[in-house]
Amino acid sequence: MTRVYLDHNATTMLRPEARAAMIAAMDVCGNPSSVHGEGRAAKALVERARAQVSSAFGADGADIVFTSGSTEGALLACGDQKLHGSALEHDAVRSWISEDLPVSHNGAVTVEQPNRTALQLANSETGILQILPQGLAVSDATQAFGKLPIAFNWLGVTRALISAHKLGGPKGTGAVVLKRGTELATQIKGGGQEMGRRGGTENVIGIAGFGAASEAAARDLADGVWERVEALRNMLEQALVAGTQNTIFVGQSVPRLPNTLCFATPGWKGETQVMQMDLAGYAISAGSACSSGKVRGSAVLTAMGYDEITAQSAIRVSLGPETSESDVLRFADTWLAKEKTYRARVA
Amino acid sequence: MTRVYLDHNATTMLRPEARAAMIAAMDVCGNPSSVHGEGRAAKALVERARAQVSSAFGADGADIVFTSGSTEGALLACGDQKLHGSALEHDAVRSWISEDLPVSHNGAVTVEQPNRTALQLANSETGILQILPQGLAVSDATQAFGKLPIAFNWLGVTRALISAHKLGGPKGTGAVVLKRGTELATQIKGGGQEMGRRGGTENVIGIAGFGAASEAAARDLADGVWERVEALRNMLEQALVAGTQNTIFVGQSVPRLPNTLCFATPGWKGETQVMQMDLAGYAISAGSACSSGKVRGSAVLTAMGYDEITAQSAIRVSLGPETSESDVLRFADTWLAKEKTYRARVA
Repeated sequence: MTRVYLDHNATTMLRPEARAAMIAAMDVCGNPSSVHGEGRAAKALVERARAQVSSAFGADGADIVFTSGSTEGALLACGDQKLHGSALEHDAVRSWISEDLPVSHNGAVTVEQPNRTALQLANSETGILQILPQGLAVSDATQAFGKLPIAFNWLGVTRALISAHKLGGPKGTGAVVLKRGTELATQIKGGGQEMGRRGGTENVIGIAGFGAASEAAARDLADGVWERVEALRNMLEQALVAGTQNTIFVGQSVPRLPNTLCFATPGWKGETQVMQMDLAGYAISAGSACSSGKVRGSAVLTAMGYDEITAQSAIRVSLGPETSESDVLRFADTWLAKEKTYRARVA
Repeated sequence: MTRVYLDHNATTMLRPEARAAMIAAMDVCGNPSSVHGEGRAAKALVERARAQVSSAFGADGADIVFTSGSTEGALLACGDQKLHGSALEHDAVRSWISEDLPVSHNGAVTVEQPNRTALQLANSETGILQILPQGLAVSDATQAFGKLPIAFNWLGVTRALISAHKLGGPKGTGAVVLKRGTELATQIKGGGQEMGRRGGTENVIGIAGFGAASEAAARDLADGVWERVEALRNMLEQALVAGTQNTIFVGQSVPRLPNTLCFATPGWKGETQVMQMDLAGYAISAGSACSSGKVRGSAVLTAMGYDEITAQSAIRVSLGPETSESDVLRFADTWLAKEKTYRARVA
């Protein structure tokens, strides 16, 4: 049985371009901090990737500080900053903020002091997009980068978080993007790499993959790949809406990521659905991957005013560039059959 | 001209076993935190690597917390701990300690409160080994792991730092090894990975490479590879000693890493030597790679009581498993010729 992977917001396949760049980087031995030829060759790979990421993120002239991913990025951008934020943020950001901003039933966050606030660009579970106020301190763009056209230089944001593995790069690499000249308190110290902002020998192979994946993702975006994905997502949503009665579709009326579908069937636990669909050959998730195995329901849905039973019953289906019409139609058939069984059992 | 790489303490070639493991891991898409089949497959790669690292480091039953390298490891193991230490430590550790422990001319550190102290196992610049007191809080084993037989479980250390790229794994992956059950204040938060000790989606490809490299490094060690390297290092040292008059060889009389040679020719700046040797086809370093480009001399040599001129004139030659007799003899001839030119110029 061919498996169907519909959990692209958790992580996605390594793009062939990233794979090729990483394998090529394996032959470059030097430490980017070394002054000799081998060191300079490694440094050149890192700087090439920095230019690729910068260009793909519309951040020419901004500073790109490579990290081990957005979770480290959240520490670097938000740690000790006492920022305001909402419960919609990823746990990595929630660890550092005062969770005091109100969230509407449609998932909109009201910001009062942009320069003291962290606000995500897109939610990982619902795909719902935020309108970022000018002068925002931090935006977690992890889920949006690669799926939406973004120009950091026009966002009016001081610091943004991005991650390679959400757009076809390797896991374990990301960046904080900074308005040039912005201060940033170093967290991982020693060695002076990344202009003193983040110590530690650079993940050269991973960074090379991040650069190549960013470039490829930007090309896909320009080629309309995500419009095709969005049409498939909508096709899936329509099939599910037509076949269900009690299922709630989250974020239907507001702008969302083109690939994300979040829906809850109150009473039928998300984790149960994930396991049943896994056995049937489909990879999906209940809440963010990082929260997997936790007992409580989605904090995101709770923040939007859904009750606990609904929050515990939500699943996320997230499509990728290679998702096919057959994938989504087979998913819909399989899920609807299971939902019918569930309804019959509880009737 | 074939280049000769003699800077293995800065970073070393990716081992074929690591390369193969990383390429294989590229086909595993899932997020290790996901509960579906793809997620479990990724988790299995991480856990396999954890077992490989644990076994190679003699740390069965200890906890291995994967990090982005020893610099992050230093934050995790030493941050906010107010530990004592010496100026011999790597800058990543020096960032977090009170630098108040005395260092002898032979590079031995006197420890008073082991459970409040960080002490490296081997120095990256001189290769000099420390005798670790029982109950030591933290030991940076970054340079020693892979080059010396180490059994963490017999070291009597609570937390140790290790890094993949010093033993043939990729840059950007490392671990903090912990006596089981030891507390560790989480620094990178959110997501709950690594048993809540280090958040962030795991660098699956890098970790797979770390595991494979550790296993291969342990096999090399058992096969006597480093005894051969040590013989070459000693051959190199003898050739240089025989051909020079004013050059100081550091750590000759004390136990050192088998591959490391540190020597200073007072007045002839280390950076100049590095550049001259680079042009001649040899990669070496002056001080640690992370300190490259800094103007001041080696803090390590200064701490050992060498004067500033000597400290500024030190270079490090560090051999690897594939270094040949011809490599070291050619290096000696080339360096001695340049040293002669230098002496003639300043005479």
